[in-house]
Amino acid sequence: MTWTLHPDRALPAEPGLRAIARGILDATEHLPIVSMHGHVDARLLADDLPFTDPASLLVTPDHYLVRMLVSQSTSPGAIRDAGVRSNGSLGVGGANARGDDLPEGDPREIWRRFCAGWPAFRGTPTRFWLEHVLAEVFEAPVPPSLETSDLLYDHVSERLTSAEYRPRALFERFGIERLATTDAASDPLTAHARLADDGWGDRVIPTFRPDDLLEAGRGGWRDRLAELSDASGVDAFGYDGFLAAMRARRDAFVRAGARATDHGHLSADTTRLADADARRLFDLALRGDLGPGDGEALTAHLLFEQAAMSADDGLTMQLHPGVLRSHDRGLAARFGSDLGFDIPVRTEFTRALRPLLEAFGHRDGFRLIVFTVDETTYSRELAPLAGAYPAMRLGAPWWFLDAPDAIRRFREATVETAGLRNTSGFVDDTRAFCSIPARHDLARRADASYLARLVAEHRLGLDEAIDTAIDLAVRLARESYPVPVGAPLTRDSLTPAVAR
Amino acid sequence: MTWTLHPDRALPAEPGLRAIARGILDATEHLPIVSMHGHVDARLLADDLPFTDPASLLVTPDHYLVRMLVSQSTSPGAIRDAGVRSNGSLGVGGANARGDDLPEGDPREIWRRFCAGWPAFRGTPTRFWLEHVLAEVFEAPVPPSLETSDLLYDHVSERLTSAEYRPRALFERFGIERLATTDAASDPLTAHARLADDGWGDRVIPTFRPDDLLEAGRGGWRDRLAELSDASGVDAFGYDGFLAAMRARRDAFVRAGARATDHGHLSADTTRLADADARRLFDLALRGDLGPGDGEALTAHLLFEQAAMSADDGLTMQLHPGVLRSHDRGLAARFGSDLGFDIPVRTEFTRALRPLLEAFGHRDGFRLIVFTVDETTYSRELAPLAGAYPAMRLGAPWWFLDAPDAIRRFREATVETAGLRNTSGFVDDTRAFCSIPARHDLARRADASYLARLVAEHRLGLDEAIDTAIDLAVRLARESYPVPVGAPLTRDSLTPAVAR
Amino acid sequence: MTWTLHPDRALPAEPGLRAIARGILDATEHLPIVSMHGHVDARLLADDLPFTDPASLLVTPDHYLVRMLVSQSTSPGAIRDAGVRSNGSLGVGGANARGDDLPEGDPREIWRRFCAGWPAFRGTPTRFWLEHVLAEVFEAPVPPSLETSDLLYDHVSERLTSAEYRPRALFERFGIERLATTDAASDPLTAHARLADDGWGDRVIPTFRPDDLLEAGRGGWRDRLAELSDASGVDAFGYDGFLAAMRARRDAFVRAGARATDHGHLSADTTRLADADARRLFDLALRGDLGPGDGEALTAHLLFEQAAMSADDGLTMQLHPGVLRSHDRGLAARFGSDLGFDIPVRTEFTRALRPLLEAFGHRDGFRLIVFTVDETTYSRELAPLAGAYPAMRLGAPWWFLDAPDAIRRFREATVETAGLRNTSGFVDDTRAFCSIPARHDLARRADASYLARLVAEHRLGLDEAIDTAIDLAVRLARESYPVPVGAPLTRDSLTPAVAR
Repeated sequence: MTWTLHPDRALPAEPGLRAIARGILDATEHLPIVSMHGHVDARLLADDLPFTDPASLLVTPDHYLVRMLVSQSTSPGAIRDAGVRSNGSLGVGGANARGDDLPEGDPREIWRRFCAGWPAFRGTPTRFWLEHVLAEVFEAPVPPSLETSDLLYDHVSERLTSAEYRPRALFERFGIERLATTDAASDPLTAHARLADDGWGDRVIPTFRPDDLLEAGRGGWRDRLAELSDASGVDAFGYDGFLAAMRARRDAFVRAGARATDHGHLSADTTRLADADARRLFDLALRGDLGPGDGEALTAHLLFEQAAMSADDGLTMQLHPGVLRSHDRGLAARFGSDLGFDIPVRTEFTRALRPLLEAFGHRDGFRLIVFTVDETTYSRELAPLAGAYPAMRLGAPWWFLDAPDAIRRFREATVETAGLRNTSGFVDDTRAFCSIPARHDLARRADASYLARLVAEHRLGLDEAIDTAIDLAVRLARESYPVPVGAPLTRDSLTPAVAR
Repeated sequence: MTWTLHPDRALPAEPGLRAIARGILDATEHLPIVSMHGHVDARLLADDLPFTDPASLLVTPDHYLVRMLVSQSTSPGAIRDAGVRSNGSLGVGGANARGDDLPEGDPREIWRRFCAGWPAFRGTPTRFWLEHVLAEVFEAPVPPSLETSDLLYDHVSERLTSAEYRPRALFERFGIERLATTDAASDPLTAHARLADDGWGDRVIPTFRPDDLLEAGRGGWRDRLAELSDASGVDAFGYDGFLAAMRARRDAFVRAGARATDHGHLSADTTRLADADARRLFDLALRGDLGPGDGEALTAHLLFEQAAMSADDGLTMQLHPGVLRSHDRGLAARFGSDLGFDIPVRTEFTRALRPLLEAFGHRDGFRLIVFTVDETTYSRELAPLAGAYPAMRLGAPWWFLDAPDAIRRFREATVETAGLRNTSGFVDDTRAFCSIPARHDLARRADASYLARLVAEHRLGLDEAIDTAIDLAVRLARESYPVPVGAPLTRDSLTPAVAR
Repeated sequence: MTWTLHPDRALPAEPGLRAIARGILDATEHLPIVSMHGHVDARLLADDLPFTDPASLLVTPDHYLVRMLVSQSTSPGAIRDAGVRSNGSLGVGGANARGDDLPEGDPREIWRRFCAGWPAFRGTPTRFWLEHVLAEVFEAPVPPSLETSDLLYDHVSERLTSAEYRPRALFERFGIERLATTDAASDPLTAHARLADDGWGDRVIPTFRPDDLLEAGRGGWRDRLAELSDASGVDAFGYDGFLAAMRARRDAFVRAGARATDHGHLSADTTRLADADARRLFDLALRGDLGPGDGEALTAHLLFEQAAMSADDGLTMQLHPGVLRSHDRGLAARFGSDLGFDIPVRTEFTRALRPLLEAFGHRDGFRLIVFTVDETTYSRELAPLAGAYPAMRLGAPWWFLDAPDAIRRFREATVETAGLRNTSGFVDDTRAFCSIPARHDLARRADASYLARLVAEHRLGLDEAIDTAIDLAVRLARESYPVPVGAPLTRDSLTPAVAR
């Protein structure tokens, strides 16, 4: 019994276009994976332990998958029976916000629910990725369904006992050149240190994410300051100390191999405050006395200051605003975050980024990558900005938008204004380790399809299209996340040459 | 002389795709029509009288058609001669806002103007629907043009004298399984009662639309309260009485077969007020003393209360915000509403629906369907919400957006995030009775085309595509508008099995 | 050595669609060019001097080209070396904002930089246009590259010495029927007068652009008033005088052959003020005492007054709001405007245009054309408005949006609601004279491609598609910009008949 995916899946249906796309894909399909923005836990690769079971490997850490199953509970009220309760039983959320552990469900039962819910994923990238993971990575004999659930569970479980399916073995098999994790600013980076001890320090690198520390208006900020003080050895309970502690942590990340920072606030505002105003608001925040709008103003200012630090230390700055986290606060309070209930809101960039770009948009060594989940900004704001400022690159379509039709829309809406070289290269942004090759594969298929149309319409030569496809697959990701100026020389590894 | 439409119209041009699409369409083309949201007047089917003439059947009740003819007056100033006056002569508006009757034009002359204006509809769905109505329903021998106007007028007129062209005969011929009308909250539902007497009560059902009653800041609100008091037998001139009267009317609708409510306010805001604030604003509204913003706040609160009632009585809640009614107030004052001058505005859903979804988004038995005419919310807000909350379904593309290219955009922008089963099924939303089959036909063609591409790109199996097409054509509409919990058992008719 | 462009470039790849598109394009490819909105300097044609060199002809006046080269400086900090400095050396900006001349670079070196940067334009319309200009207009033997730079420079330079490459000769060769320039309200129109003396007055016509005069809150407004007073002979330093001076200048433009006005403010707001309020704000503006929001309110009112004047004198009113000029103010201060750093912002039309459309939307002889660079308004606001009001037409996709994929999106998002005849016809909007035929050619290819799909999907007959293509290529542009009512009879030239 075998289950084989079509080699030309996600390429255009029209035979002429498909032949061209196939030719382009031939040049990128087997290139290494440069994964510069993701959410895999570094401990996974530091420990390199076998995965325990199919459910905790493939189902529970994937919020795309959880939310779809929740949304499709057979009756709307079954949220407790098939949804939120199964979030518990699915293992999502782990320890909840109140600190008590949720009971872990039986992984075979969780797997059965996932297989039964398979039809709900028709037309989604989740379906496409999971097909890749199951058929290509695990050589599963059949697609998921209620009937095949146990068969698949046993099949995948058996593979997981093999040394070939340990994390580092998969990392090698996937052809991953470099994998960036995402780490809190005060994270001690011990897993990365262990990886470095094993000679993996330049293959698995941290990314500096200080969101909580920049949102002084949110609960728990003082706890975050305490952690920052501890981690940095600098008292962060004062404006100057805070900035110094930030610089110290950024420096620690640079020394640990980081190439970038990552910032996900609700707004993209980067309005700089006058120094006295910034100090005043910071002091108000320390006293818990921020007035209406003060928190947002301070966040915007501190984001500007992060840009200033990037201009100094060379960490590529990644911005991805515009998501309202934990839309259902009751659900979040009971089961934690990352359940798929983070919902985008309208986002503004032209005015919001002006202070930052006026200050650093032409600065040598400063690099800003902007991601969005608001497609309306593609042709109106982001492509015009990226097509003008040298420091800015347009981030790949991601999160809700790293799917075949969405990637096509991204290219069609941005290339005509910003070209192809003002973009960052693909990022997979995933915490589902086994789906990394699937996601890069899909992106390369989507880009090959887009470029094939340009060729077929005589808007681009085939040689140019192939060269561009290699840019998009690997070169732009390498260029967009260079080794920071202050990094130790030993970190400055040579970038492997592209095969062709 | 015959005029035959191409059987594969609106299917993809590429031969391989078309063959697949044709195969999918074969499975849905002859399925019954489930029309759960529309604006046909129930009296039409209760009376079952012959239609009088082609103009009043096909031209004057269709605001798509009227606005296009108005927009294309040969000189801009001809609005009085060919536009607004012909709105009068076209019969649109009927009695105007000042209460005096507009002169009815000569229907043959109206028909001539429509035929002369036929080229203006190139590329529009109106053209597609009218071709279907004329060629398929009326077996017209030729397309409209100034030259064929009289020939067509006589042809259609002759058909209208036949018993086969009476409303109920057409209803049967169209294969309509169930037709929902839209009715004011205080409507006595006498036409529906007459239909029930004739055994048609479950085939033509009312929909509860209380918009005027929820907009306390608008003129005429006290008149609406008086009507509500009369209709419900409950004094609605007080907050508690108002809610009780609403519940009573909802109950009457449920008993008359209703499956849903319908809400079309400018904003989607559902912010609940504290009880004391709600009472205070309601009292201010009664005294005509609402301050700035008070009317909107009260509307949002009352909309939340409607959701609470739906959570109780099981009526599916339909929301379609974001349209500025009667954009040209002078025109509306002279000729009434529904002239095609209702213009969309930017709409926000993520924050606006949060109160409602946090309260009822996981509630068993509560079902919310959200429609939009702001496409920018598809991938950014509505698909993420519908792809997470079990209670929410994404309404079909409608109004300005139920056209081939717009339907494609809807699927491409929503399926990758929300899948296909978090949608409501197609609704035709029309007051043009004869166009109902044309609109469902076009939607099925558009969906077959979309699904065919997924198949051709190896993103979906053909069997899955056919199964999904049947979902979209009939099953989802049946599921999304179930029989309310409180409905009399006799209403709970069996849903006919799908043919295949 | 020859470089030949594919005759079917930018037509659909699928063979069936391409054949239909080719058939449609056959009917429009050689029609005259009606260029009713652009930025070519009238002096170019009045002087009719030979162009000096390839760089100042093709590179430096084209902000699309400059911004892309700037955005792609090999290191971000090379803005001074390869970017802004090369703006200077590229000759962009000419005299800067501080009034001193920038050194002109060596044109051969500028050309070399452009040729080296050629790969950055992959997928952009700039690439498509330049290929047309180089291969078709200049019969260049090879595409640009670092290696071919000198060869191309010499080839183009040699052509420029020929009489066939003088501006008027190219104008004839391009088949331009009429070319509208854009001119400040106080411009003496001397170049147009010289053109009229040569019998070219009806071929090259001015357009009235009073932006600076309507923005009373901006610096330099009093200087603009002084210029207006001088040009009109009416003291504009008072509300009544200002309006009278405006009317006088509009009249001068009408007498010089103008067909239209052009308005590009940040907002589309057209809210009329009460007369007393307008006078009060105007007086405050004269004293430099405008409060917050006053400037915007006065601009909106004065824009409404421009509409009122158009309703009187018959100049077609063109509106294109929504662009934040000179996003990088530091760059603008050093090197001037039009560097490609004008960035769009979200724009609102439904409410903003209501006052204007309620007042004049049905007025005989009034014509409003609305352009946008915010695609989100296509299906939501602009198509519904243009599909209802007789006075309003939807402007062609332009600026960032006059590219193959963007034009397709424009048609797909607007035609289903507004049809094809509620649009303005294509405008090239360019200051790059030699690219005019390339831009119209590309638009005709894009429209042929769109129409071919309608034909192939049996949504339109081939004869209708061809007729519509001719509408879009020439007829709608002629109709949308008619001779104003007050124009001298001698200006009222006959419009040449379309070839077929």
